[in-house]
Amino acid sequence: MTIDHRDFPRRHLFDLAKGLIYLDGNSLGPPVKGSEDIAYSVIDSEWKKELISAWNTCGWIELPHTVGNLLAPIIGVSLDTISMGDTLSVKLFQVLAAAVEMRPKRKVVLTDSGNFPSDLYIANGLLDTLGRGHQLKITKPDQVIKKINDEVAVVCLTHVDYRTGRKHDMAEITTRAHECGSVVIWDLAHSAGALPLELETIQAEFAVGCTYKYLNGGPGAPAFVYVRPDLVSSIQPVMPGWLGHKKPFSMDIRYTPAKGVGRFRIGTPSVIQFKILEHALALWKNVDLYKLYDQSVVLSELFIAEMKARCPSLELISPSNPTQRGSQVSFASKHAYPLIQSLIDRKVIGDFREPNILRFGLAPLYVDENQVIAAVQILEQVINERVWQQDKYQTKKKVT
Amino acid sequence: MTIDHRDFPRRHLFDLAKGLIYLDGNSLGPPVKGSEDIAYSVIDSEWKKELISAWNTCGWIELPHTVGNLLAPIIGVSLDTISMGDTLSVKLFQVLAAAVEMRPKRKVVLTDSGNFPSDLYIANGLLDTLGRGHQLKITKPDQVIKKINDEVAVVCLTHVDYRTGRKHDMAEITTRAHECGSVVIWDLAHSAGALPLELETIQAEFAVGCTYKYLNGGPGAPAFVYVRPDLVSSIQPVMPGWLGHKKPFSMDIRYTPAKGVGRFRIGTPSVIQFKILEHALALWKNVDLYKLYDQSVVLSELFIAEMKARCPSLELISPSNPTQRGSQVSFASKHAYPLIQSLIDRKVIGDFREPNILRFGLAPLYVDENQVIAAVQILEQVINERVWQQDKYQTKKKVT
Repeated sequence: MTIDHRDFPRRHLFDLAKGLIYLDGNSLGPPVKGSEDIAYSVIDSEWKKELISAWNTCGWIELPHTVGNLLAPIIGVSLDTISMGDTLSVKLFQVLAAAVEMRPKRKVVLTDSGNFPSDLYIANGLLDTLGRGHQLKITKPDQVIKKINDEVAVVCLTHVDYRTGRKHDMAEITTRAHECGSVVIWDLAHSAGALPLELETIQAEFAVGCTYKYLNGGPGAPAFVYVRPDLVSSIQPVMPGWLGHKKPFSMDIRYTPAKGVGRFRIGTPSVIQFKILEHALALWKNVDLYKLYDQSVVLSELFIAEMKARCPSLELISPSNPTQRGSQVSFASKHAYPLIQSLIDRKVIGDFREPNILRFGLAPLYVDENQVIAAVQILEQVINERVWQQDKYQTKKKVT
Repeated sequence: MTIDHRDFPRRHLFDLAKGLIYLDGNSLGPPVKGSEDIAYSVIDSEWKKELISAWNTCGWIELPHTVGNLLAPIIGVSLDTISMGDTLSVKLFQVLAAAVEMRPKRKVVLTDSGNFPSDLYIANGLLDTLGRGHQLKITKPDQVIKKINDEVAVVCLTHVDYRTGRKHDMAEITTRAHECGSVVIWDLAHSAGALPLELETIQAEFAVGCTYKYLNGGPGAPAFVYVRPDLVSSIQPVMPGWLGHKKPFSMDIRYTPAKGVGRFRIGTPSVIQFKILEHALALWKNVDLYKLYDQSVVLSELFIAEMKARCPSLELISPSNPTQRGSQVSFASKHAYPLIQSLIDRKVIGDFREPNILRFGLAPLYVDENQVIAAVQILEQVINERVWQQDKYQTKKKVT
């Protein structure tokens, strides 16, 4: 794929229907052009022709490592510090187990109510399984800094709140945690590919994330795990997988972990999803994440200003200070669900989130100022003409 | 795809090069014809066009359930008792945790040395994590029945030995385990799609397996988990995932498990791999597994007879009684590695397994009698002409 060096948008790199305003890339990113050809050719030229040999000849066995290296600069870490595979929940389970083990005398895992509920399920599930009296303490997002103290074993947070877009100060929290001797885990699901990250600089111990949102890896794309390299050799993974073994094909009855972060591998990588993700990550070589985020701020400021002018009945629930936001804006309305459904019918794809949230992701790679203005104009029309009151927009579908 | 009703082989359903003798379907099955078109169209017609809506409109969110229902008759269980996703290791971790919890006063998990090393890693990893004094007892395969007693919480076995093809008597072991009050987990990695299974009839509590071997789901295809339906409602999954929640999109901060086996779901399903697997499983509607296994016995008996006649220096390490074998035959030789490499170069694809094993999978869907005879003739030639002594066949590659 040839990439030109204009800045944003770069909509020509994506497969998006003309006229569609896609403000839901923070839920599922659109395909990078050629994704379908990649999937076809992995099956046609690799699986079909090479069969079992493809694990060697086509580099399949190394994908969790090689694709991790494509991701490394995007989240601000060195090569060979990321392993990929499974889903974010499984990766979180692994790193949280490793993290609590690093502070065996402490019993508190600190998180906040802005975290994904799924992260809370996994954290509680793990702590119950350990059965060693750990407690998951859920504080308010703005209280996190105050609540970190020397009883806290692990601070486990999602960087950008999936509902409001509120962004934690990763550096400040990580520094404070380290002052108190706590270990830090960052969930970057709504950050990776949306804003510049300097994970290595801030010396966070662990990070996990998914790749199907701003990174456009496709539905069910592999997750990632980062482990600070000075720590990894002392970690015995809680789910010791075959491919995390030092010598998987020795078929040794005893488990010996692989040298680096590769020990967090579990089973067979989902090769076809990996290859699609590899293709999607290639475009980031030519993206300056600082510029990308600057443009995201331009878009979100414009969105908020337009909403204030045209749809004043909707309440901004994202921080009004752009330095405190990720790459999304959210509004509350008791009619949020039918409003979003009305928008979707008019080719403006946003997201409803319980209980009353309209959520709009702003990915500068394929969203521009004109689209932001058009989206708000359409919403204005939906409100003024009471479109959302139509019966067909009222009933909630199973999932959104 | 139109399927004719001749019996075996049905090589026209598969994408296999002419002249290739593929005896490694127990490691990675070949693609069912049209797999590449399915992958292409999921991206082109679903992801690209429907974007986030595809989770509803294209049934993506239900794939772990709907694809599980395609698998159900293949492993001999009722509909709605299988959930799919992740890898076998993750699924095993989940069910073993549930199983030990069912017998809280017992501390022994019984397995055998014929199990996959990866299953042993996971079992040990889980028991260490629990930290409640459980012991993984590894006995010899033929001693399993004798070692089951009322101290055994869980009997955790792989049905067909990945090296020798030795097959456990699932009914006998399960019955014995139940007499002693033990819970049973079967790993069906080398069984599903290779032989008829009557998992429900024998009343086993749990089963797990992968779908990229005899089921041709492709590299990294999703794994499966079966839970006996009368048990599932009392299980609190050890890795409580978002999509295993009763109402995932309520974003409830508390975890409430889904009604049935769906509670074993964790994160986002790998949609593209799922769709390829769904396509691969469709052909099984017209396969009688009893007939398939009968033909597998014809092939393995022929293989063994031919080997005895032509390659007597190689020692059969599979059971000579076909009722005690899965759908593979294995031989030992101190030259196993170069012999297999020589065969691969001659378009006979078998597998080397440490330390000295030549392993041949026999999938009657695409392997016939002529191929079996030809394979052994080529091996005879490789041995008689000392082809395997060539330098290029001596050095072990990283993976096989």
